[in-house]
Amino acid sequence: MRRLMLGAVLITAMACATTETPEARTTRMASETAEAKTAIDAINVRYATFMNGNLADSLGSLFAEDGVVMPPNMPAVSGRAAIQAWFAANPMPPGSQVSFTATDVQRSGDIVVERGTSSFTMPASGNTPAMSMPGKYLVHWHWTGGQWLQKSTIWSDDAPAPGGG
Amino acid sequence: MRRLMLGAVLITAMACATTETPEARTTRMASETAEAKTAIDAINVRYATFMNGNLADSLGSLFAEDGVVMPPNMPAVSGRAAIQAWFAANPMPPGSQVSFTATDVQRSGDIVVERGTSSFTMPASGNTPAMSMPGKYLVHWHWTGGQWLQKSTIWSDDAPAPGGG
Repeated sequence: MRRLMLGAVLITAMACATTETPEARTTRMASETAEAKTAIDAINVRYATFMNGNLADSLGSLFAEDGVVMPPNMPAVSGRAAIQAWFAANPMPPGSQVSFTATDVQRSGDIVVERGTSSFTMPASGNTPAMSMPGKYLVHWHWTGGQWLQKSTIWSDDAPAPGGG
Repeated sequence: MRRLMLGAVLITAMACATTETPEARTTRMASETAEAKTAIDAINVRYATFMNGNLADSLGSLFAEDGVVMPPNMPAVSGRAAIQAWFAANPMPPGSQVSFTATDVQRSGDIVVERGTSSFTMPASGNTPAMSMPGKYLVHWHWTGGQWLQKSTIWSDDAPAPGGG
């Protein structure tokens, strides 16, 4: 009887040790993704507020210590301190506003990939007419110390800058 | 004795049903990531070969059916057929070469995020001098039907295009 009991425990333990099935993985990812989308949407509101206020230190707090910002036509910027310095050196033009809309969020475990669209508007100023520029972005969020932080962030405009090449 | 056996099975089953611990998740991701890096490196060699040969249909085969390409200064291109048409309409200049180097690959389950650098070179032609342009990219690879396919791909140059704005 003791042998039978041991056998039953071993069989249960072995079932437990098998790797995740594809079906279980799909179910897990769907549930994790719904939860993450809500969290990311909330962070993006703060992200836009920090951008529009040119709050470089607050912006940096949304990135992992080893986070990387990948701006168009500039080299990548690595590490939170360098990212804060970059935001301070590249402020938004006066009166301009940006907002972010996540269009596709996928999560598995500690990783979220967010694809989204951005809206940038700048009011008329002197001889410069008002401008509006749609864009797109991809963000790798990583679950880090109990919060989602940006590990890689890259974006581009949907058209060449007015007057640009 | 039967009650004791049932109890042992239940306890084992309960231990099995608990959600993944943070430690288990970290270990799983490290193991999955090493395996994925090898696969992604191999695909990137084919990706560069297809780019350099302007093989639009082959390029499209590296993307998910609902994949999205996000080129700089152009709107995003959604879906494999549209991506193939986009590659056909935007070929590499004659003699130019691109290569990709994954600098950070993270995997969890069906998701891989690859951050990398690109190298683009173009030979001199007529009055146009030879050109070399480093760049960077972020790719969301998704495990789809037994292979890694690109779900989102975005990139940018590290400097403005020569003669551009």
